[in-house]
This record gives sequence, structure tokens and C-alpha cells, in this order.
Amino acid sequence: MRGVVMHAPGDVRVEDRREPAILQPTDAIIRLSATCICGSDLWPYRGADPIHKPSPMGHEYAGIVEEVGSAVTTITSGQFVVGSFFASDNTCEICQAGYQTSCIHRVGVGSEGAQAQRMRVPLADGTLVATPEVPADDLVPDFLAASDVLGTGWFAAVAAEAGPGKTVAVVGDGAVGLLGVLAAGELGAERIIAMSRREPRQKLAQEFGATDIVTERGDEGVARIKDLTSGLGAHSVIEAVGTQESMMQAIRSTRPGGHVGYVGVSHDVALPGEEMFFSHVHLHGGPAPVRRFLPDLMDRIWNRKINPGKVFDLELPLEAAAAGYQAMDTRQAIKVLLRP
Amino acid sequence: MRGVVMHAPGDVRVEDRREPAILQPTDAIIRLSATCICGSDLWPYRGADPIHKPSPMGHEYAGIVEEVGSAVTTITSGQFVVGSFFASDNTCEICQAGYQTSCIHRVGVGSEGAQAQRMRVPLADGTLVATPEVPADDLVPDFLAASDVLGTGWFAAVAAEAGPGKTVAVVGDGAVGLLGVLAAGELGAERIIAMSRREPRQKLAQEFGATDIVTERGDEGVARIKDLTSGLGAHSVIEAVGTQESMMQAIRSTRPGGHVGYVGVSHDVALPGEEMFFSHVHLHGGPAPVRRFLPDLMDRIWNRKINPGKVFDLELPLEAAAAGYQAMDTRQAIKVLLRP
Repeated sequence: MRGVVMHAPGDVRVEDRREPAILQPTDAIIRLSATCICGSDLWPYRGADPIHKPSPMGHEYAGIVEEVGSAVTTITSGQFVVGSFFASDNTCEICQAGYQTSCIHRVGVGSEGAQAQRMRVPLADGTLVATPEVPADDLVPDFLAASDVLGTGWFAAVAAEAGPGKTVAVVGDGAVGLLGVLAAGELGAERIIAMSRREPRQKLAQEFGATDIVTERGDEGVARIKDLTSGLGAHSVIEAVGTQESMMQAIRSTRPGGHVGYVGVSHDVALPGEEMFFSHVHLHGGPAPVRRFLPDLMDRIWNRKINPGKVFDLELPLEAAAAGYQAMDTRQAIKVLLRP
Repeated sequence: MRGVVMHAPGDVRVEDRREPAILQPTDAIIRLSATCICGSDLWPYRGADPIHKPSPMGHEYAGIVEEVGSAVTTITSGQFVVGSFFASDNTCEICQAGYQTSCIHRVGVGSEGAQAQRMRVPLADGTLVATPEVPADDLVPDFLAASDVLGTGWFAAVAAEAGPGKTVAVVGDGAVGLLGVLAAGELGAERIIAMSRREPRQKLAQEFGATDIVTERGDEGVARIKDLTSGLGAHSVIEAVGTQESMMQAIRSTRPGGHVGYVGVSHDVALPGEEMFFSHVHLHGGPAPVRRFLPDLMDRIWNRKINPGKVFDLELPLEAAAAGYQAMDTRQAIKVLLRP
């Protein structure tokens, strides 16, 4: 089969790879209906994360089950399924508390490489969620978004305690930030301030429910958020970047007693203790436990209540993955969908 | 009147100071029934915080109102009152959300110096809470504890979401940590692990409701907490020290999805972003909004349901304040009560 492999920063190739096979009785093999490139794939692409050997890429997936291991009981061949970037048993105490990405048996599916024609998903019963029937083609991008960026934006909004009566600010205008806007709206937030300086993203933010756009960044961005909130700061702030600057922008934009939900993978971030202490903010985040939200999110998609697939503004065949990486690296595309 | 003044690290004197007077119509003057020395007073005493000029000391107080300004409506002369280390209006949006120590009009009372015979309390209506009648003498230490250490331990337990079914670990065996144990118990925690290596403090922790004692610190302490919690970590961890080591001990002792409530004033702490991210913990804390909890805590004390004054294991006349500082610095005393 064909799959994407990163050899070095900037060097992405589509190659023949070995067909995946059932290795554990809890595994499933799925044929991907669609896959995509993640903002986090750009860290190694840009040399910010090391690449020690040629690495199969991709951890976002939606597709048709082709085969299941002997111990799989709830997932069957022919079903259309979505799963998260960490496989989880969904039964341990940590999963039951809603933190499946810290499952005591978690397995990263990234090493399987979802940017491919087929992939193996470990712990299929605990990881995959099936739709009632195979969905219409036009819903596939929406379901694919649920696999990571929607679930991650949703977790950020939940961690930031977005809800009725709240003013929510969103730092980061990538797919996760934009879907954080959508999530905040679905959760009933009164006012949603998207921080973005790029017009196509501002427009999509507004389609997803943003009521205000702030183009300033850093201290100026913080000052604008304060201006818009009687000097107090937002109740809820979503951080969807992962740099020192974006984290501090998020923390400083939050009022005392407010909540920061952070989902940008932290890179060289150190949070100053004394400032954190006196900020009085709540801080929560990490790798989004997408599995917690999948049943609800897939239901909303199935019933066409939300349209998160709009974040895919470029669709390419899998064979053109390299061009897709380039388009995201240069910010010509928000998020690239690949058709295997 | 007489009051405590710190001139330099280790140099604490009791001196004649000017009588406090009403400066604003919202002020009250109280005659202190008792005051005390705080763990945070030891930072400048030990040279860890700078002392730029001779500084009146103390921010914990309980006493009788002697005079009120013309705009004070709910507090009257003759009442026995308790207040917090930050004066607050208790009406602004931040106060109404329960964060009175970040009140938009907050005033630190520390500069007034509560280790004295009398003090001025700004924003009396929003800051002070009165008992139904002047309490019996034996309750005065309990009410004094409510002014800071009880309220701070309580906030830490609330921030850590201590409650029924929860295992709570407490880092720090000073008065705040010990009262965090008491708070966790009052909030219904199932299991309370006090981390302490000093016998008198272990005993008091047990009196306050600790079910387990862990004497190890740092990585070994974390390993012991994991041992006691099926390898997962505690649901709730109270941090009541404020150093890099204690913060990391608290974060690492918490299970994914669990809560750290931190109230030790952060000194040279930097939280590593990537570890925080993957820890999946909730982090909340800061200067405790004691005013939020005062009515409830004072009610529990009035009805003799809790006995937080037990943390005062040394009582001295105000004139002997220097000996009190020395006893706390050398850990001979947990907390020193001073009688003006």
C-alpha cells in the first residue's frame, strides 16, 4: 500500500509500505476514507522536533473496518469508524474519568501512520466509534475532523469552561483554534473573540460563531481583550498554539478566577510561578481525550448540526502529500485533507 | 501603641508606632484580640524577600471594632470581626465570582501591620465578617486561624476539588498544609495523605483527619503516593510550600485529570510546559480568597465543629514577637500566636 513517510525536515515522500496486519487480538484494520495533515506534523517538518529515522506520518483517520482481531466485540467489518490519535481501553479508571489520552494502556497510533491507504488501530473496542450506517460522502471531512482537530478544540473549550454567559477568547487561528470557536458556540458561550490577523481564517471564525475579531498579538492582544471585557479579561481562554508567547497571551487575557484551556503541544514553554500564582487563573489542558467527546460529536455531525470539515480548505490525493505539507507550512492552507 | 517592625533579615523589633486612624470613610479601626506570625513572614526574615525599609509586620487579625468611617454600614463598634490579608469591596464582578483577593479595589492590609495592638482595615464592609456576639476567649485562636491559614488551606482543598470518594495528598506540613488536611476532611474526602517527616505535625495531621502519613519527599514521595493509589496518583493534591521542588512533587503526585490546588507563595518557580501538558492535571491556586469562605468557616467555628486554632502551638505576648519569629524559623513552633 501507499503511505506518507517523513525522512528529514521538509522531506516528505509517498512510498510503498507494508500492508498492516492484525498483531493483537484487540486490533482492527481500517481502510481510510480520508486522512489529513496536522499542525503538529509541521513541528518535525520545520525541524523543531527531531526525526531519528524515516517516520510514517499521520494520526487522524476515518474509514471502513476491513478486519478485526478475535477479541474485538463491538466493532465489526464494514462499519465506518472514527478514532483518536491515542488508542485507549476505555475501561480503566483514567478512561472512565474521561482522560483516554492518558489511559493506562494507551498506544500512540501515530507510529502506524494514518496518512496511508490502510492502518492498524490497536484496542479497537475502546478506541473506535462507529456511525449508525456508512455516511454520505459529503460528511466524510466532518467525521475526519472529529478524529483530532474538532475533538481537540472541543476539549479546549470544555477545559476553558466555555458556556452560557461567558466571554471566550481564542488564541491561535489554526484548525484547532477555529474549531475551539465552534465548540465555544455549541457550548453556549455569549461572546467569542477570535484572535487572528488572516482574513480567510477570520471569515471562517465568524462562520463558526466568533462575535469579535482581534488582530493584535502579545501584550497588545491582551490589552485589546481587556478593552473588550471592562478591563477584567475573558472568562475562558483557549490556547491552541503551544509557544511561550501564546501561553502567556492566553494566561494574561484571562480574568482572575477564569479558565485557560490549552491544547497547543508545548514547545520550550516555562510558566513563571509567581505570575501564575497572582493571575488566579485555572489552567487545564494537554493531549485532548477526543474519545470522551466522539459519540456526542459524531452524533452532531450525523445529524448535520455542525460542519467542522470546513477547516479543510485544500483537498489533495494522498500521492500529493508533499504539496499538502508545503501548503500548510506556508499557511496557504488551514488544513489539508488527503484522499487515499 | 506597640507593634512589630522588621528592620532586616533576622531583625524583628517591637516598637512604639503611631495609633491608626480612619483615613477613608470606608475604614474601620480594630483592637486586636490576637494576631500571629505567618510562614510567609519568614521569607523576608530569612532574606529570601527583600526588605527596603523598616516594615510593620503581620496580616492576620481578629478583634473588636473600635471605630468605623462614615460610609461603613454593616460593621459597627463593639463587634468581634475577622478579615483577610487583602481588603476587598466584595461587590465587584471579580469578588462576586469568589476571587476577593483579586478585587478590582483590593488593598493589602499587610502594610498596616496586624502584629500590633490596633490596626486600620480598609473597605470594612466588604472585608470584615462579624460573629453573632463576642465569642468566648477559647475560640479566639480558631477565629484568628480563619483570617488566613484556615481560609488558605480551605481554598487549596477547594481548588484541588477535594470531596467524597477522593484521595487527597497534601504537600507541606506547615499550618496551611495541616489545615488543608482539615479542609479536605470537612469537604468529605475519603482518604487524606499528609506528607510530613516531623512527628508533632504528623500527629496534628492525624487529629485533623489524615488517614496516611508519607515521610518521603521529591521523587520518592511521588513514588509513595503512586504506591498508595494503584499507580495512578492522588485525585487531589494540595501544594502549601511554594518552591520548585514542592510544586513538581504536587504535580507528579496527581493522576491524569486530577487537580492541584496550590497556595504556597511561588518563589523562583518555573513550570515546564511539556511536562504540564502531558500530566493532564488541573492547576489552580494563588492568594486565597479567604473572604469567600469566611462566613461558612466562622459559622463552623462558632458552633465548635472545627478547631483550627490547634495549629498555634506557641503563644507569646506581642512584646516577645522576636522569639516567636525565631521559634518558627527553627521549626520549633508550627505557628505562633501573639497576644497584644
